[in-house]
Amino acid sequence: MGEGEQITKSVSWPNAEVIEDLRKLRSSVPLTHCITNVVVTNFTANVVLAVGASPAMVLAAEETADFARVAQGLLINVGTVTRVDAEAMINAASAAYEAKTPWVLDPVAVGALEYRTNIIEELLKFKPSVIRGNASEILATSGAKGNAKGADSTASSIEALPAAKKLAEETGAVVAISGEIDYITDGKIVISVPGGHEIMTKVTGTGCSLGAVIAAFLPVTKTPLSAATAASVIYAAAGERAAKEALGTGSFTVAFLDQLSTIGIKY
Amino acid sequence: MGEGEQITKSVSWPNAEVIEDLRKLRSSVPLTHCITNVVVTNFTANVVLAVGASPAMVLAAEETADFARVAQGLLINVGTVTRVDAEAMINAASAAYEAKTPWVLDPVAVGALEYRTNIIEELLKFKPSVIRGNASEILATSGAKGNAKGADSTASSIEALPAAKKLAEETGAVVAISGEIDYITDGKIVISVPGGHEIMTKVTGTGCSLGAVIAAFLPVTKTPLSAATAASVIYAAAGERAAKEALGTGSFTVAFLDQLSTIGIKY
Amino acid sequence: MGEGEQITKSVSWPNAEVIEDLRKLRSSVPLTHCITNVVVTNFTANVVLAVGASPAMVLAAEETADFARVAQGLLINVGTVTRVDAEAMINAASAAYEAKTPWVLDPVAVGALEYRTNIIEELLKFKPSVIRGNASEILATSGAKGNAKGADSTASSIEALPAAKKLAEETGAVVAISGEIDYITDGKIVISVPGGHEIMTKVTGTGCSLGAVIAAFLPVTKTPLSAATAASVIYAAAGERAAKEALGTGSFTVAFLDQLSTIGIKY
Repeated sequence: MGEGEQITKSVSWPNAEVIEDLRKLRSSVPLTHCITNVVVTNFTANVVLAVGASPAMVLAAEETADFARVAQGLLINVGTVTRVDAEAMINAASAAYEAKTPWVLDPVAVGALEYRTNIIEELLKFKPSVIRGNASEILATSGAKGNAKGADSTASSIEALPAAKKLAEETGAVVAISGEIDYITDGKIVISVPGGHEIMTKVTGTGCSLGAVIAAFLPVTKTPLSAATAASVIYAAAGERAAKEALGTGSFTVAFLDQLSTIGIKY
Repeated sequence: MGEGEQITKSVSWPNAEVIEDLRKLRSSVPLTHCITNVVVTNFTANVVLAVGASPAMVLAAEETADFARVAQGLLINVGTVTRVDAEAMINAASAAYEAKTPWVLDPVAVGALEYRTNIIEELLKFKPSVIRGNASEILATSGAKGNAKGADSTASSIEALPAAKKLAEETGAVVAISGEIDYITDGKIVISVPGGHEIMTKVTGTGCSLGAVIAAFLPVTKTPLSAATAASVIYAAAGERAAKEALGTGSFTVAFLDQLSTIGIKY
Repeated sequence: MGEGEQITKSVSWPNAEVIEDLRKLRSSVPLTHCITNVVVTNFTANVVLAVGASPAMVLAAEETADFARVAQGLLINVGTVTRVDAEAMINAASAAYEAKTPWVLDPVAVGALEYRTNIIEELLKFKPSVIRGNASEILATSGAKGNAKGADSTASSIEALPAAKKLAEETGAVVAISGEIDYITDGKIVISVPGGHEIMTKVTGTGCSLGAVIAAFLPVTKTPLSAATAASVIYAAAGERAAKEALGTGSFTVAFLDQLSTIGIKY
């Protein structure tokens, strides 16, 4: 199967549907529950605020179920999961499933470490709307043997596309592979999102916070496929623009938040 | 009761008393113990350093009592409180109460979630010097029915002023309501602090870190009312100035820290 | 013993050996396992990425041993250690010792708080390659009575040099004292690294993240002494350059990451 047969369409900024979805997000300010790793919690909250949603990083096992029920979207990212966090995540995923709160699973470094691989398997039972990861993580989640080295990907995103389609079919989730080109699939349609910049791999949290932005879009878009696409498109555009202004990774991060908070406004 | 009757005075930068309190803070570099949420820990430490105090984020249940005794001011912010953190907070508050270390309570999202509401009630027994929150949080803390949505406020700060005065009278604490205009009261005097900028609501931790700056001022000002006022005034001024330079939320944050670290120096 | 007798040599950027070590680091992208405090986790990951290594902040007690075995370097920083973290740290240090993964111990605020002092004593049994701290922390670790006030140093780095040499001899570790001038010793050779800037003491994590950069250099340099030297030299150079561009602590942090991510590239 060649690449031409797989890709349904390529989407990039400015795209009319993405612009409309972003407008809806900013007017409804969806409450977005983020349970993520300690490395990127601050950056994720700032990214979600920049895009225009309302992040809430509620993470105590005693509170996550209650909050996942009232939130409009939920992200669960297992990047630094401990046994205390695992309980909080299962509670949240279970409540989201019952309350029909759409949610995103980010299986950071799955396959590389047995402990979290088991937690991810447990979480998958609660039917995430979207699974987002890099190529190695998607390969590992779909049961193929990824070669995950920490949170970094050693496979290219296109290599993981067959596994992503299989994973989408088996779980019912949209699968988003982040990489030089992002691929997003519901098992049938495949969207490719070009753009971004290599410097994004030199700033921690650019991938993890994308999962939160997808969660913020879930309540406002027609489908999870559109949510993952909208988030990826504005990310790629903001990243590309920010890279032009950056003198290094510090100023890139600043410019990236500036771009996310103004994209479609000053445009 | 009209607004005119409530407000004793409005304070903004440059104000002679605030300038003098800031000078005292910078010359004495008070050791400021911060137990705060994982979203804003880094930003809070940087804000406290920028203002000129010495932050210490000691948070283990085994250490917080010992440290709260030697610290000159303490902040307890329940933003992401877990059961492990709750124990650490109670230990700190209890030790601060015994050792007469002045402390600030930030009841993030109180009323919205039962678990933390109970922890906050427990913490209130140890007599905080200052309670800082947005309007919804102050309404909920004072027993009125706030409509807290995550950590964001749905009420305006002036609406919460009667509840703030009642809460101040009942607890003996100064109550600081953050909003477009900040109100600070000890139950009798009401200080209003104008300024700041709307973009501050789009950066996580601007409210939470204000609590830490109040804690840093507590050991150097004559009263807790002055500490809350000084902190709010330099925050509003730094926020207003930073907003003028900002291209978005990323550069705002950078400019805000720049302003806090130079206010009154380059002035 | 005068200073002249103690210092073997002073190293600063550009130094041929440091340039070569940095080139090796960037071409091999060492997997650097960081178990650090919640205040600086994000900044540390960004610093390690900026320098050119691959950070992984694996911190669950169930995962740290497995990961410390495959990582090429490890940092353990006890800045906000809880009992859950302590277990994770002991597991990591023990596994690193068995697997011969070189590692750095950062004994934040040792001596000031009994709980963490005991944990640090336990960790020392697993033979760190490098111990990095400020003067007060090195004095306290070596058994001399430091006067540690939180994480800040009240002693100057040269005052701690005799204690550092003694500690190096007793433990077999290289000891790095951070301060206005950094001193690094294996008990015989003493390297001094001038440079940096006072503003670095006003940004949280500049010291803590240096420990992670040393861990990143450990697998690529000939000796732990060279790793600590290389890391300290590029830190001092980046800090000095960034201070020239900074308008305050916010823009300093941005410029510091920019400098770390480009040093030796644009040079």
